[in-house]
Amino acid sequence: MDTAILLISCRDQKGITAAVTNFIYQYQGNIEHADQHIDSQSNVFFMRIEWSLKGFALAKPKIIAKFAPLAKKFKMDYSLYFSAETSRMAIFVSEVTHCLYDLLLKFKEKQLFCQIPLIISNHSQAKKIAEDFNIKFFFSQKNPQNKLSAEKKEIAILRKEKIDFIALARYGQIFTRQFVKAYHNRIINIHHSFLPAFAGSNPYRQAYSRGVKIIGATSHYVTEKLDAGPIIEQDIVRVSHRDCLEDLRFKGQDLERTVFSRAVRWHLEHKILVYGNKTVVFD
Amino acid sequence: MDTAILLISCRDQKGITAAVTNFIYQYQGNIEHADQHIDSQSNVFFMRIEWSLKGFALAKPKIIAKFAPLAKKFKMDYSLYFSAETSRMAIFVSEVTHCLYDLLLKFKEKQLFCQIPLIISNHSQAKKIAEDFNIKFFFSQKNPQNKLSAEKKEIAILRKEKIDFIALARYGQIFTRQFVKAYHNRIINIHHSFLPAFAGSNPYRQAYSRGVKIIGATSHYVTEKLDAGPIIEQDIVRVSHRDCLEDLRFKGQDLERTVFSRAVRWHLEHKILVYGNKTVVFD
Amino acid sequence: MDTAILLISCRDQKGITAAVTNFIYQYQGNIEHADQHIDSQSNVFFMRIEWSLKGFALAKPKIIAKFAPLAKKFKMDYSLYFSAETSRMAIFVSEVTHCLYDLLLKFKEKQLFCQIPLIISNHSQAKKIAEDFNIKFFFSQKNPQNKLSAEKKEIAILRKEKIDFIALARYGQIFTRQFVKAYHNRIINIHHSFLPAFAGSNPYRQAYSRGVKIIGATSHYVTEKLDAGPIIEQDIVRVSHRDCLEDLRFKGQDLERTVFSRAVRWHLEHKILVYGNKTVVFD
Amino acid sequence: MDTAILLISCRDQKGITAAVTNFIYQYQGNIEHADQHIDSQSNVFFMRIEWSLKGFALAKPKIIAKFAPLAKKFKMDYSLYFSAETSRMAIFVSEVTHCLYDLLLKFKEKQLFCQIPLIISNHSQAKKIAEDFNIKFFFSQKNPQNKLSAEKKEIAILRKEKIDFIALARYGQIFTRQFVKAYHNRIINIHHSFLPAFAGSNPYRQAYSRGVKIIGATSHYVTEKLDAGPIIEQDIVRVSHRDCLEDLRFKGQDLERTVFSRAVRWHLEHKILVYGNKTVVFD
Repeated sequence: MDTAILLISCRDQKGITAAVTNFIYQYQGNIEHADQHIDSQSNVFFMRIEWSLKGFALAKPKIIAKFAPLAKKFKMDYSLYFSAETSRMAIFVSEVTHCLYDLLLKFKEKQLFCQIPLIISNHSQAKKIAEDFNIKFFFSQKNPQNKLSAEKKEIAILRKEKIDFIALARYGQIFTRQFVKAYHNRIINIHHSFLPAFAGSNPYRQAYSRGVKIIGATSHYVTEKLDAGPIIEQDIVRVSHRDCLEDLRFKGQDLERTVFSRAVRWHLEHKILVYGNKTVVFD
Repeated sequence: MDTAILLISCRDQKGITAAVTNFIYQYQGNIEHADQHIDSQSNVFFMRIEWSLKGFALAKPKIIAKFAPLAKKFKMDYSLYFSAETSRMAIFVSEVTHCLYDLLLKFKEKQLFCQIPLIISNHSQAKKIAEDFNIKFFFSQKNPQNKLSAEKKEIAILRKEKIDFIALARYGQIFTRQFVKAYHNRIINIHHSFLPAFAGSNPYRQAYSRGVKIIGATSHYVTEKLDAGPIIEQDIVRVSHRDCLEDLRFKGQDLERTVFSRAVRWHLEHKILVYGNKTVVFD
Repeated sequence: MDTAILLISCRDQKGITAAVTNFIYQYQGNIEHADQHIDSQSNVFFMRIEWSLKGFALAKPKIIAKFAPLAKKFKMDYSLYFSAETSRMAIFVSEVTHCLYDLLLKFKEKQLFCQIPLIISNHSQAKKIAEDFNIKFFFSQKNPQNKLSAEKKEIAILRKEKIDFIALARYGQIFTRQFVKAYHNRIINIHHSFLPAFAGSNPYRQAYSRGVKIIGATSHYVTEKLDAGPIIEQDIVRVSHRDCLEDLRFKGQDLERTVFSRAVRWHLEHKILVYGNKTVVFD
Repeated sequence: MDTAILLISCRDQKGITAAVTNFIYQYQGNIEHADQHIDSQSNVFFMRIEWSLKGFALAKPKIIAKFAPLAKKFKMDYSLYFSAETSRMAIFVSEVTHCLYDLLLKFKEKQLFCQIPLIISNHSQAKKIAEDFNIKFFFSQKNPQNKLSAEKKEIAILRKEKIDFIALARYGQIFTRQFVKAYHNRIINIHHSFLPAFAGSNPYRQAYSRGVKIIGATSHYVTEKLDAGPIIEQDIVRVSHRDCLEDLRFKGQDLERTVFSRAVRWHLEHKILVYGNKTVVFD
């Protein structure tokens, strides 16, 4: 289906929904989905509205221009997307490949609405997988010494491939502040703990040492602060004294894939709005 | 907060949301919550919209009259509620009282927005509890022979107490078709299984015999067909071979309370729309 | 049923299980439950074994003496309990009473195998509840200035009432090191977060601020370090941007009761072994 | 690690555990894991005991002969396995391949202790996957007319490949009674509902029509009766009115893989005992 999607946020005030839905109705748009949320603490209004372009009286390139006065009036932050124009996603991965595989298989089964032109890794394991799925592979060896120059090359190829969005499918490297800025709210990571517990390295080992009875996984946007960005999705699985560290990894793996692919899918369908350090997910 | 709540359903068509939100905006209403859903299979539009009555330019008794033409135009089914006018809930219970206790305690802690003027039971256990919470208790002994006459008396007292809504807090009796009709979509039951599995009596025993690895609880509106009405909420807990029948009951009890009180709360807050044999829950 | 329960831990070595089960068999004991666990990291052996005293050829008071040589040979830490000799539990509570109510109702329904002779609180809300359930109420006003003397009085009454075990049913006060020592591994707390996340005060507010998508509850033994003792049980519930702080409290409340009562029940049934900062729960 | 595993079931009676553990101790075996369970309803004793063969004074081929008198005395059903002798698993699959992929990837990452010499399918999609993983592929076109002869060929190749165990990774065909008998308690299926709800075809469509708020997946041993065999593992995920049928499939897919691979792993590690229509899972 050919639809347009508007993501809007602004200070809450009377008449926003009426104005936006009138705008769509005025050009004979049929609303397919509409969700709104008011954060009453901060008095911010959020909206996601999706309408069919079939019979819509405005051509795609003219929508922004016609919507602009309304947006200005309410001082909106807004983005317009078209379902037919899929995002171009790059996947970064290190030596653990189950999350990479999961995205590729879901893509193949048409469950992720995107293009995947590029896989970047600091390990060689993913090369063969990239080949099997006919995706360009870029090997980027990184160490503390060459990080800046390595990232420069990564950004060059990301730009060349017109990448909109980066999925970190168990990627072990930390990006510089500049890199994160360049893809602000467009990098999603999967961390194998229920954040904020067990941030940093070896979360399963941390969980095992603490003796928790549940382990989790968290998918979040990447910010400058490690494992502290806006949380998109989390889930958990029960463990017991019978589970050794290896069992935690086995159980957690399924969790990581599930949580990660949900978050990636929501992002690709433009269902997430970030505000402060939180997300609104119109699932 | 003093708000008005509109629940709307009608055939999906262009301009509904615009019309409704314009209506509210026209009288200077500030929308607090708005949710809508389109069931694309049946092409039905659902909406729940809640706006502040502070500064709203229409007096409460005039809202319906002013809204009617719009409703007629779109052939809407709709209901209007005011948050300040709480429902009057009666609770039916048999000998197992944990769900009754839970509603009463949550009511006492101001987590259920209603009045509870009446408890009806075919057992005497609840009498003392009703007294402790200062609620009228009506003992209604029922058997297959006297069911119709007993229900007549129940309906008489329900009417006398102006009851809007009935919560079956583990009530072991089946109502007649007439009774159910009189309170159509206004009776919520808690069944101790994940329906449609294990409908009917002794669901824990059924679950134990089948050897399932999860047990559940389901809250649903009561219809003529036993345990087959529109499902509002469900949840589950894991069990294992280590759990005997008594353990299932212990674990399930917490589940029942949780699932039941969520469903009751959503109903009292006018967050549920029923269509066909399903529910839309704008949680 | 009249049973004996042995909880054993020692360095793992050959022949432990054979020795223990031979001991029971030698006196014609019939094993009802047996669980063992080896922590392979620390090479420690754990066992819980429960056998029927019906037809057991050793009188209760003689069991320890006869078992002692075997325990000495394997250098065991062990405890012997009899199912007929229920623990005496005191409940501490502050102004939030749903966990207190839950224990009392489960006790009344014979789902907690104990006696509850005493409720202690620094607030007056629980007084009426204690009276309703015919339990002695001790009001213990505490502040940083009088903490030591207040605890002295508490310990005096705990001793007078021969209390074995303390359940902190949402108790807002922190005990001194001495108090905790006096009831080492015999105080269970319920904390309303999935520890180690959101330790300390106002965990729901912390969770709300962080924007997590799941909230949790944790039951643990109390140690000197706040919210850092051995975890017994945890569980979670999903939340979303639609949930305000009050919704978190509503959802979390059911979680707290469930998690807390499971932990208390396991303790009362002698199903928990503590080692280091972890627990083995033979559920 | 090189271990021996005994799975035992027999009528409960005094001295079983003592006898078995004495047997192991007598030959200097070190017990690594021991679990037992008594089904008090049917008075049946179950045990799984695993001990290290390092330093065990009996050679592998002699264990059965030495254990036989003890087994006879207690009238045990028992099986002996060696961890070093991995099962040979065949995978049956139709056109939906995510469960197949999952087993193969987990096998590759050494999380499934088995050999996978054979994939059988009535569709061609799996052929390429089999090749990628270097596994023999057997195409077996089936229809109601040729079922018996097709199964004959399947059994021939299963025997030729010395297959111990069959995993039905979303296999759409129903086996004959004879086939099921030949692999009694050695065929595991994944069904995409929380059985006993929604047995048979199109469970997601059934769930969608019924309007449930949770969907599930169930892994079970295959018996003559469709979707009615002993349940090994189940899990669920929440859904809402916002989820269309396609969303149920997307969410369910992750569930299916997780539930299926857990069940397969437990079977391969000899952790499952079947009795009546139930399972004991010593996880």
